[in-house]
Amino acid sequence: MQHSWKDELETFRQLVKKMKAYEEALGVMYWDLRTGAPRQSVEGRSSVIGVLSGAMFKLQTSEEMGRVVQRLSEEDIWKQLDQTDRKMVEECQKEYVRSTKIPQDRYEQFVVLTSQAESVWEDAKERSDFPMFLPYLKKIITYTKEFIERWGYEGHPYNALLDQYEPGMTTDKLDEVFGQLRKRTVPLLQEIAASPHQPDTAFLSQDYGKEEQRKFSHYILEQMGYDFTAGRLDESVHPFATGLNPGDVRITTSFRPDDISFSLFSTIHEGGHALYEQNIARDLMGTVLCTGTSMGIHESQSRFWENKVGRSQPFWRRYFRELQQAFPGKFDHVQADDFYRAINIVQPSLIRIEADELTYNLHVMIRYELEKALFGGELQAAELPEAWNAKYEEYLGVKADRAAEGVLQDVHWAGGAFGYFPSYSLGNMYAAQMYETIRNDLSDFDGLLERGELIPIKDWLTERIYRFGKLLTPAEVIQHVTGEPLNPRYLADYLEAKYRAIYRID
Amino acid sequence: MQHSWKDELETFRQLVKKMKAYEEALGVMYWDLRTGAPRQSVEGRSSVIGVLSGAMFKLQTSEEMGRVVQRLSEEDIWKQLDQTDRKMVEECQKEYVRSTKIPQDRYEQFVVLTSQAESVWEDAKERSDFPMFLPYLKKIITYTKEFIERWGYEGHPYNALLDQYEPGMTTDKLDEVFGQLRKRTVPLLQEIAASPHQPDTAFLSQDYGKEEQRKFSHYILEQMGYDFTAGRLDESVHPFATGLNPGDVRITTSFRPDDISFSLFSTIHEGGHALYEQNIARDLMGTVLCTGTSMGIHESQSRFWENKVGRSQPFWRRYFRELQQAFPGKFDHVQADDFYRAINIVQPSLIRIEADELTYNLHVMIRYELEKALFGGELQAAELPEAWNAKYEEYLGVKADRAAEGVLQDVHWAGGAFGYFPSYSLGNMYAAQMYETIRNDLSDFDGLLERGELIPIKDWLTERIYRFGKLLTPAEVIQHVTGEPLNPRYLADYLEAKYRAIYRID
Repeated sequence: MQHSWKDELETFRQLVKKMKAYEEALGVMYWDLRTGAPRQSVEGRSSVIGVLSGAMFKLQTSEEMGRVVQRLSEEDIWKQLDQTDRKMVEECQKEYVRSTKIPQDRYEQFVVLTSQAESVWEDAKERSDFPMFLPYLKKIITYTKEFIERWGYEGHPYNALLDQYEPGMTTDKLDEVFGQLRKRTVPLLQEIAASPHQPDTAFLSQDYGKEEQRKFSHYILEQMGYDFTAGRLDESVHPFATGLNPGDVRITTSFRPDDISFSLFSTIHEGGHALYEQNIARDLMGTVLCTGTSMGIHESQSRFWENKVGRSQPFWRRYFRELQQAFPGKFDHVQADDFYRAINIVQPSLIRIEADELTYNLHVMIRYELEKALFGGELQAAELPEAWNAKYEEYLGVKADRAAEGVLQDVHWAGGAFGYFPSYSLGNMYAAQMYETIRNDLSDFDGLLERGELIPIKDWLTERIYRFGKLLTPAEVIQHVTGEPLNPRYLADYLEAKYRAIYRID
Repeated sequence: MQHSWKDELETFRQLVKKMKAYEEALGVMYWDLRTGAPRQSVEGRSSVIGVLSGAMFKLQTSEEMGRVVQRLSEEDIWKQLDQTDRKMVEECQKEYVRSTKIPQDRYEQFVVLTSQAESVWEDAKERSDFPMFLPYLKKIITYTKEFIERWGYEGHPYNALLDQYEPGMTTDKLDEVFGQLRKRTVPLLQEIAASPHQPDTAFLSQDYGKEEQRKFSHYILEQMGYDFTAGRLDESVHPFATGLNPGDVRITTSFRPDDISFSLFSTIHEGGHALYEQNIARDLMGTVLCTGTSMGIHESQSRFWENKVGRSQPFWRRYFRELQQAFPGKFDHVQADDFYRAINIVQPSLIRIEADELTYNLHVMIRYELEKALFGGELQAAELPEAWNAKYEEYLGVKADRAAEGVLQDVHWAGGAFGYFPSYSLGNMYAAQMYETIRNDLSDFDGLLERGELIPIKDWLTERIYRFGKLLTPAEVIQHVTGEPLNPRYLADYLEAKYRAIYRID
């Protein structure tokens, strides 16, 4: 006997709810491990994580899931579903097909491999020893190539990887937008290097108390409209945000005693991610749509808040006096505008995560080009260090003496996360494009910042982006918000205007 | 085809490992909810807890579990199992039989009922309104009576409840040991009340900084041998300890600004629970034996550390000067022995959790007698307030004006935890009996305390109790440690000697 489609829909929703429950439980485990779980907890906790991930994967790829998404996709049923259910079915079917194309034993081997590789990478980075990491990297690439073939792809094999993080993104599009951006970034960078008006940054490296930093982070988050009844701020080695559900979106930051910028901008950045997750419509709770729509759009929000708000001149015209009060004696003889220039200093450097707003995209493009070449078959894993250094020399004019500061600097490849890096720059491009729209929409955007009225900004973003969660695709979001598809011109224009002013270039 | 018994054993172990993983995940969720999860997280988290508990219950009562424990219990297989596997099979079979005797829908209704009842109880206590809580209490009792019948029992129906928390305990044994204890406690209490030598306690109620209290709690835990690489100390409304696995045993305490005793003895008490869980043999990890053997034995350890160590004279001869230094100016003119007398003041009172070491057991006996009468059919739920007040009058000479301070004070009944209360006093009795043994065994026990050498004490307890986890039954533990079965004389002797000295009664 066949079940009625309404029964199948109910079954489907219950399956999803369960999957989400496992996901949330895993989220709590990871948060806990990174924010103060005792050292010896790791052994026991990994097996818990294994069991929960296994249970989740099993649901995702269960025959029951296959059956219900198949049934609900039938045309006569599909047209009776509402937008949320349709999108849910679409997402789960995609995930089901994708996951069931990989034999379970291959997938499990890959999970074990990457988890070993991450710990080998840690040691290899410590010793700056690329050959130590190479055998693992090779295997991960081999597995990934196999998965790409199993998944299938159109155009470049790398598209299969991009699609995981930014659905619909392709190498063709990336080549175009990255090309345009690079063409305008590199000459600007040269002009900046040649400018005699370099900002003074000495006052960013004094001795700042942890408690003062924590309080200021807390204060800025409140100003941004981060809801502390639906979140908390903790400390971890690497700052992160995690959306367990819209009622529980946690942020961590990291306090460096001699670097005020680090905690400040980490907090604002993670706060941007968190605002997205806190403001997803509550009726999406317990569905697979209750999360940001893609890594790129998520990153657009963290970067919007970090750069367009937190590193802007009007923002510091309002908040610099609060900073002075929060750190008595540290900024007494500094002007708000000098602070603004200092936090925007541009310096080609080796390390991506410490890069400024302008050079950051070049770090990303290098990784993108290398990954594309690896999966296009033009580059071998063993050749990475050399290729890496050549690109850094070409784009940024710097050269790593040690692999630890070069090809070994990021954990992504050890975790098998090929295709992820472009999201960071996509985020910057989306953010700049949205910035243009919001400035036109809210007639006095700078005035809002200058008056510390950040809530209307949060509300604007909620109305147009946050509340939809994953109901819209990234391409739909950018079209819907800005009225046109992704266009790198906005980022290039913004960077040019901002940095020409800071470096007083005519 | 029948599987080989070794395959079945492996299946069994994997099932148990999964169950334990769910249990650990649930432990992390509860810890998180009580130590600072954002207020709005509760809604999402309850559904996660529901899913994980459901998955665990399903494993516990699965056909597969039924099959393997049945098979492994067959005599020819059983005799080939080692002690750990035997005990595991026994435990899981008991749990399987017990759980499968309750129809799943009845169990789920009961879980929903108690979770509603807990929140109604909270409001009812707030308003001191017993009739508001009564309908829920009645239903819980009805369900519990049904469960008792389904489980079956020997002797008194209440035995089925006792067995959940203290396997093997019966009303006959409890009547006897509680009777003996009460016979010696009540006259002692009268002598104490009549003594002209009442301790001065004013210095326990000054203004103590939270940070100072936290540091001192931390220090004392270190002294006890609590391993901070396998645990952490946090703050929560009600102090608790939770053993997620032996590498992660967390404690919370609560800091009252005007009451130094509260955090101090809460920390030592929870520290005792934690030492037990941290020192279970690592080869029991991931098995159902990796926990304390019963509530009573667990409580014996928290109370051993709290009372026999933390409220002892030699302990404060060593640590009082540390306390003076930790709270400058607060205890300058106090003598160690006066402090010792103050923290041991005896005062018949209404509230169990604030009761002293001596009167505490009377609070427990009252609850035991009422519960036994409820399930023996001699008392109706509606008659509880009256019966409660009568017993308090009789045993402690006090009378609650408000239900909030009387029959509504504890959450246990709202959660359906009938049969739990006796564990607290069993813990006191076990602890006193073990105390007698350890004093004979470690020739200079008081000297160890006076010199702050607490590690040999922890090691002694580890060797004889902690490492076994649930490998031994509570009756086996007490026999094995002290060479005789539970005997209430030790507690009565100890209390008499201690309090006669404090109150200078000849």
